[in-house]
Amino acid sequence: MAHEVASIPGDGIGPEVIDAAQPVFDDVSDRFGFELELTRYDWGSERYLESGSMMPDDGLAELAGYDAILLGAVGHPDVPDHVTLNNLLLPIRKGFDQAVCKRPAILFDGVESPLEGYDGGDIDFVVYRENTEGEYADVGGQEHPGHDHEVAVQSAVFTRTGTERIVRAAFEAATEREGRVTSITKSNAQAHSMVFWDRIVEDVSAEYPDVTVERLLVDAASMDFIRRPEEFDVVVASNLFGDILTDIGAIITGSMGLAPSANVNVTGEYPSMFEPVHGSAPDIVGDGVANPLATILSAAMLFDHLGESEAGDAVWTAVTDQLADPDAPRTPDLGGTATTARVVEDLRTRI
Amino acid sequence: MAHEVASIPGDGIGPEVIDAAQPVFDDVSDRFGFELELTRYDWGSERYLESGSMMPDDGLAELAGYDAILLGAVGHPDVPDHVTLNNLLLPIRKGFDQAVCKRPAILFDGVESPLEGYDGGDIDFVVYRENTEGEYADVGGQEHPGHDHEVAVQSAVFTRTGTERIVRAAFEAATEREGRVTSITKSNAQAHSMVFWDRIVEDVSAEYPDVTVERLLVDAASMDFIRRPEEFDVVVASNLFGDILTDIGAIITGSMGLAPSANVNVTGEYPSMFEPVHGSAPDIVGDGVANPLATILSAAMLFDHLGESEAGDAVWTAVTDQLADPDAPRTPDLGGTATTARVVEDLRTRI
Ligand SMILES: CC(C)[C@H](C(=O)O)[C@@H](O)C(=O)O
Ligand SMILES: CC(C)[C@H](C(=O)O)[C@@H](O)C(=O)O
Repeated sequence: MAHEVASIPGDGIGPEVIDAAQPVFDDVSDRFGFELELTRYDWGSERYLESGSMMPDDGLAELAGYDAILLGAVGHPDVPDHVTLNNLLLPIRKGFDQAVCKRPAILFDGVESPLEGYDGGDIDFVVYRENTEGEYADVGGQEHPGHDHEVAVQSAVFTRTGTERIVRAAFEAATEREGRVTSITKSNAQAHSMVFWDRIVEDVSAEYPDVTVERLLVDAASMDFIRRPEEFDVVVASNLFGDILTDIGAIITGSMGLAPSANVNVTGEYPSMFEPVHGSAPDIVGDGVANPLATILSAAMLFDHLGESEAGDAVWTAVTDQLADPDAPRTPDLGGTATTARVVEDLRTRI
Repeated sequence: MAHEVASIPGDGIGPEVIDAAQPVFDDVSDRFGFELELTRYDWGSERYLESGSMMPDDGLAELAGYDAILLGAVGHPDVPDHVTLNNLLLPIRKGFDQAVCKRPAILFDGVESPLEGYDGGDIDFVVYRENTEGEYADVGGQEHPGHDHEVAVQSAVFTRTGTERIVRAAFEAATEREGRVTSITKSNAQAHSMVFWDRIVEDVSAEYPDVTVERLLVDAASMDFIRRPEEFDVVVASNLFGDILTDIGAIITGSMGLAPSANVNVTGEYPSMFEPVHGSAPDIVGDGVANPLATILSAAMLFDHLGESEAGDAVWTAVTDQLADPDAPRTPDLGGTATTARVVEDLRTRI
């Protein structure tokens, strides 16, 4: 049976890391005996600069038939951020109802944390980020432009459906892990939305008597990710809080170049999307030194999602081995001097 | 001339740190020849638990006549956060139009950062946080409670007045420092509010041709505070982003116990408020080991604000000296075993 995957390399280093991952796809599909068909879409900012749109009008319809989507990166120095994101990445997350964004934060053996006293294995948690609504709702506007009494409003929208499903996904995950959920709020300052969030967490937690729940304010959590990251198991957060916390999670575990993510449509009605947490990194584009591992780990999550968990495990293990090997090549973000290609070449020998 | 200051110790360790700071007030007013009259208000959660309100109905009117306010901490395990905050701290910030929240992040000599490779003196920036509106606006609500289609809305409100004055304050500050402003946004996901914010930053920056401006997304900034904190000078952020970033700023500079803040009413129409960034710390209440230095540094900012900058400098220098002295007593948050009282006793010999 062939799995059909749409690949959207996107901007900046996106194409470099997607191309680098390609041979890994070939290797695992060979080894584990399944077919994987990647179809490439050259959507993104270059397309926007040429034609005025990031993707075709029927882009979502085009993607809808795939089993999964692999995305590189989106973002370009010559295109405003709200254009790039609101016309490609966010429409896919929202349009395909990819409600659950799963982002592991693992300090792998052999990787250095910027936090003093933390070694490989010391940090291992996962953030479940709400991915379709909340503070990213496209609700609001500006009034009286240019006048003294000008005002801009941006409304965060939390539905029961949206909130319940991310919270439930986090509790489910906790039952497979250490049984601890930390719910991130800002109930002291955002009583309309966050007190609602707290209530849903309380309701759902009643269904999971064996899972312990901690409530933590987002400002305190940002500190605690630095002060006591070893204590977290499953962290559940709104779209914005999850965005901020997963970037902190990536940096404390050594490099943005290692952080994978899955944007999961929980009903299976639409394809899920897998992407590295890092951005398009315009500063290193074309140097051939982008770290391919975040994309490759994202691919491992994609294999799992397709039911090819042996393949997913094999890739994950190969990356773990490579990072633990002091003689293995590393890209500059990890303190090495190796190219993207060299890292992939070495990785293939480990699969 | 006597300066009249209202002191609100508040909850948890609030009274411990405020009481500890008292002798320092006496010392500097003696030494620099001014009178300082502190009036204490026992407002807070204990009052709420007894009487159902955090402060009297005419609390703001009572405070309005003072030259400044010194606050300890607010927050209590038996009172919901949105009650404690929305009925004491936030009404003061908003009611007295304390638009500019100034929070220095300094890694003092002799203090250890949790970030590997950072020594005293390596980090020195200040965050200018909008303090009266934005994501903390009390606008929103919940609809269809308990039903499947329940929804909660929380609206962030940015006015031109509110945004311009915080941005301008940041640019002003930069002219007295290294001439660099970093503006924190999330324009890629919050186009209604943050694109407006960006526009104001652009407008104001035109008035300050000698100040350089960097725009940074809040998720990237959270990482960069860990990855390259030495590069920041003045950071300007919305209420929520400033809240999160100043907690990160506090932790990377060694301890929440050292982070002071000023909530400034820029017109002088109302009193400004000075408070440590840390909270009520229920876990250590009554142990007598709370770090008094964040409060004492906040008092130094208060002296400056009252025009007693010699006194402010003297306190700031005494704290700097104490921290740099390896034999000086330290509270447990700084790795020592000293009590609050011992730290203050030692500090007084340095003023
Ligand atoms: C690019 C941006 C819109 C996106 C987000 O905020 O979700 C990114 O930061 C991420 O974390 O995937
Ligand atoms: C207690 C809370 C409402 C407050 C805030 O979010 O402003 C605190 O975290 C702070 O930073 O002063």
